[in-house]
Amino acid sequence: MARTGRRPGESGSREAILDAARTAFGERGFNDASVRDIAGRAGVDAALVHHFYGTKEQLFAAAMRLPVDLAVAIPALLEGGVGGLGERVVGFFLAAFEAGGEQNTLLALLRSAASHERSATMVREFVTKAVLGPVAASLDRPDPELRASLVGSQLIGLAMMRYVVKVEPLASADPRTVVAAVAPTIQRYLTGDLG
Amino acid sequence: MARTGRRPGESGSREAILDAARTAFGERGFNDASVRDIAGRAGVDAALVHHFYGTKEQLFAAAMRLPVDLAVAIPALLEGGVGGLGERVVGFFLAAFEAGGEQNTLLALLRSAASHERSATMVREFVTKAVLGPVAASLDRPDPELRASLVGSQLIGLAMMRYVVKVEPLASADPRTVVAAVAPTIQRYLTGDLG
Repeated sequence: MARTGRRPGESGSREAILDAARTAFGERGFNDASVRDIAGRAGVDAALVHHFYGTKEQLFAAAMRLPVDLAVAIPALLEGGVGGLGERVVGFFLAAFEAGGEQNTLLALLRSAASHERSATMVREFVTKAVLGPVAASLDRPDPELRASLVGSQLIGLAMMRYVVKVEPLASADPRTVVAAVAPTIQRYLTGDLG
Repeated sequence: MARTGRRPGESGSREAILDAARTAFGERGFNDASVRDIAGRAGVDAALVHHFYGTKEQLFAAAMRLPVDLAVAIPALLEGGVGGLGERVVGFFLAAFEAGGEQNTLLALLRSAASHERSATMVREFVTKAVLGPVAASLDRPDPELRASLVGSQLIGLAMMRYVVKVEPLASADPRTVVAAVAPTIQRYLTGDLG
């Protein structure tokens, strides 16, 4: 490792950063783990972490091998405007879980979140800060944090029922059926009148 | 105990039944545990279990010391008719979790469900079979099971975010704010067009 004076190759540094990130996120959660700390654990400079992986959100996605590129996904969710936003969010969410079948790391992370409080905190902080927060904040509606947490409550409940505890008929329903049923909920939480 | 030939008093039998029920539900889940099995474990007749506690749903509620009398609650949810049903369901759900503060057994059960898959199955089976199923079935709309599982997905996600992982501002929001925000979702899942 770099700390002992031997300089690893680029792929060695990349792997060391991902290992350090998994450890740090697992121990401290998404919010409290810092890029500086992760760099220190990996024996590299924080600038190199940013150079290889971008933001902390992107580093988390890489470390957890999420089948999602947030730098592409979030602008894509928003660029169609407010109409159909609920549909795009639910469709994106289902696709992220359903890509790659049982090998999907997001699915593994969710299963682990169902039984380990620390994993649950990590997933929740990541989903809220990295995905729902930016989407809600960009909409210029009152109470963006409340909106983001309402969206999170529906999506996390949906994922638990469909993928973890597998309640029928939700578990086996066609993704289009699920999107049609749940999209108006997400649309209203993001853009509608909350009462 | 009755099995050894000594006849316990009524309160001894009642406690033995509740103990046996907690063990049986914990081991086999809500659906697979039977009143006959619970009676056998408690050394009493199944008829006595029904005499003391009513249905399996009511026995579960008693064993888990749920702050809810289902025989009263479900008809009360339905008797106001379809209008305002979403509001009554969400209000009932929040009240059941918030009565009694940290001593609330429903809250304890939910926390345990977040970390133990067996508890999660038990809670989910109970909520779906004993509460949401009867409500959805009574409405005479297409796809009652899908409706019940969609309602379950929103309510379980809400309970996780508000009471277990405590995401703000949802965790501290006034119950009226939460009811106003979530009731239209539940109303649409129960009675609306699912697309």
